[in-house]
Amino acid sequence: MTTSFPMNAGDDPYSYSKNSQLQKEVLDSAKEMVRDAIIRKLDIKIMLSSSNTFRITELGCSIGPNTFSAMQHVVEALKEKYQNNIPEFQIFFNDHITNDFNTLFRSLPIDRSYYAFGVPGSFHGRLFPSRSIHFAHCSTSIHWLSKIPKEMLDEKSPSWNKGLIHYIGASNIEVMNAYVAQFEKDMEVFFNARAEEIVPGGMMLLISPQLSERLLKFFGSSLMDLVNEGKLDESLVNSFNVPVYFPSMGKLDESLVNSFNVPVYFPSIEDMTKVVEKNDCFSIERIELTHPKSKLVDEADAKTLMINLRAVLEGLFINHFGREIAKEAFTRTILKSDEISAWMKINYKKACQLFIALKRK
Amino acid sequence: MTTSFPMNAGDDPYSYSKNSQLQKEVLDSAKEMVRDAIIRKLDIKIMLSSSNTFRITELGCSIGPNTFSAMQHVVEALKEKYQNNIPEFQIFFNDHITNDFNTLFRSLPIDRSYYAFGVPGSFHGRLFPSRSIHFAHCSTSIHWLSKIPKEMLDEKSPSWNKGLIHYIGASNIEVMNAYVAQFEKDMEVFFNARAEEIVPGGMMLLISPQLSERLLKFFGSSLMDLVNEGKLDESLVNSFNVPVYFPSMGKLDESLVNSFNVPVYFPSIEDMTKVVEKNDCFSIERIELTHPKSKLVDEADAKTLMINLRAVLEGLFINHFGREIAKEAFTRTILKSDEISAWMKINYKKACQLFIALKRK
Repeated sequence: MTTSFPMNAGDDPYSYSKNSQLQKEVLDSAKEMVRDAIIRKLDIKIMLSSSNTFRITELGCSIGPNTFSAMQHVVEALKEKYQNNIPEFQIFFNDHITNDFNTLFRSLPIDRSYYAFGVPGSFHGRLFPSRSIHFAHCSTSIHWLSKIPKEMLDEKSPSWNKGLIHYIGASNIEVMNAYVAQFEKDMEVFFNARAEEIVPGGMMLLISPQLSERLLKFFGSSLMDLVNEGKLDESLVNSFNVPVYFPSMGKLDESLVNSFNVPVYFPSIEDMTKVVEKNDCFSIERIELTHPKSKLVDEADAKTLMINLRAVLEGLFINHFGREIAKEAFTRTILKSDEISAWMKINYKKACQLFIALKRK
Repeated sequence: MTTSFPMNAGDDPYSYSKNSQLQKEVLDSAKEMVRDAIIRKLDIKIMLSSSNTFRITELGCSIGPNTFSAMQHVVEALKEKYQNNIPEFQIFFNDHITNDFNTLFRSLPIDRSYYAFGVPGSFHGRLFPSRSIHFAHCSTSIHWLSKIPKEMLDEKSPSWNKGLIHYIGASNIEVMNAYVAQFEKDMEVFFNARAEEIVPGGMMLLISPQLSERLLKFFGSSLMDLVNEGKLDESLVNSFNVPVYFPSMGKLDESLVNSFNVPVYFPSIEDMTKVVEKNDCFSIERIELTHPKSKLVDEADAKTLMINLRAVLEGLFINHFGREIAKEAFTRTILKSDEISAWMKINYKKACQLFIALKRK
């Protein structure tokens, strides 16, 4: 059983539907590579020998406009490739059962040229019958781990991540190792499932951004502010002549931060090559780090980014810290937009985005 | 564009999930016929020549336990038929985009032996690629019309249905004719779509109950009570010496009842035979009226029945009359449970349920 971390549901101002500009940047910058993979690498005749239906899945689709524009782009490239012999398209929108499929379905484009389906379930497991998928697409999703490794929740463990909420910023290498180990386990399950489901010659594209999620550290520091603020000064405590127990006076108990780790791991080219080769059912047609140069670098953009990440992370935060602390952590992080903007301006050129095109052997 | 009339969403006390006993009776009484159609009539070899996946759809699935138990029953009969060569099963749960798919997905049986998908859209139109479905099942859904014929909303039309909310109970034959004409138009679209989607040799089962929906008349009379109550006595009006305009003092204006017609038509064997023969793509393998003898005949059952119908009709009523009148109409109808129980006891033996097994030529 995997844990699920749905994006904010519905379409209100803090919903993911209304706040997915970051993920749009990722998609836009990968567009040409997606088209190229379809036009140059996909061998259609092999796959559709006995049917005229081309079956596509969007893994980790969430809700909002990005999933539809990504699928529209894929269908257009396929039509360009098929030219005079265009098949019927069947698109399977996949995400956890906790995803807001009602909103997804109600926002399906009216003029779509494909049959649309919802597929509830974790992609860390089987979703489709054997050899039933021709093309799988997965953008800003593959970095989600199925869970946080159990040992990270044990304060006696070497991978105990004190005062932080992610491996980014952690000086303890065991923290990173624990994330990598979980990523490799998850990818083993992921690739085993896809190897069964994708037809020989079928294609899978994975797109994984890295910059935006490094912004996690700003949320971590907001949480630690809530821990440290209002704590009694130690010298004041020491001035008492009798031993007195002073509980933490911060709004948030540090132990709650220590036991919280955001379950996302951003794989390198080496990480991905390793898991694909271990699985041994897919050939790597293209793998590279690109530099999309985010346009979201000004202070107003920093606010947009933070509201965007709030739509992604809010469920996770509320689940662990409760609604009040989660709200305060998000509000405080958005107030740091000048600091975040400064950080973005330094880092946006280094921004890396992983693009992988795979073909089922 | 068809209009949609979703069952009550979620799983609260008035939800359809919690109130679908009627529809369960329908399914239970058809179980043996469903199994028989699969075991005796389905030729599996023809269909699965090039794949090991058997694709099933439940048309108008709504939410709640019935859709899962119906599909479980179909899968079990198929396994019995396939014996040592069991394929992979793919089940497509279809309903309008306004259906509560979130609740549907969250209540999927954990131990199911099929891949589950949601298909948002009206079955009065295309839902699937050509020749992609092996087995279609549709229970207590086919009687929903895509809309009420426009002419019924015109008070100068011969099919104006004054003081009633359905053709049942109407003495004006034009009312019935308007419903029949709409049913025939809808079925033309329905069968054209299914003829494209179902593989040659594929099967479609339609199950349509009739008794329970005749209970509509009790809701109609509750609405008319709300119109008539509190109206000024005509003699009192006449006793005035000067002409005065007295508006209706009822809680509900009669014109609202006159312009409301529940969009369900219960086809006879002749109706169904006519539309199937007109389409000409399906052979009728079995068609009959059965007498399932409802067990829901006592006064407590009558309450259950009315709460069940409320879960079906509430959205439709609220949409037309507003929340307050809808609530009052339902409350008043439930108070008539003694009268309804008496009616049930007289009528339950006459109860008819239509079962049709069709095979794609």
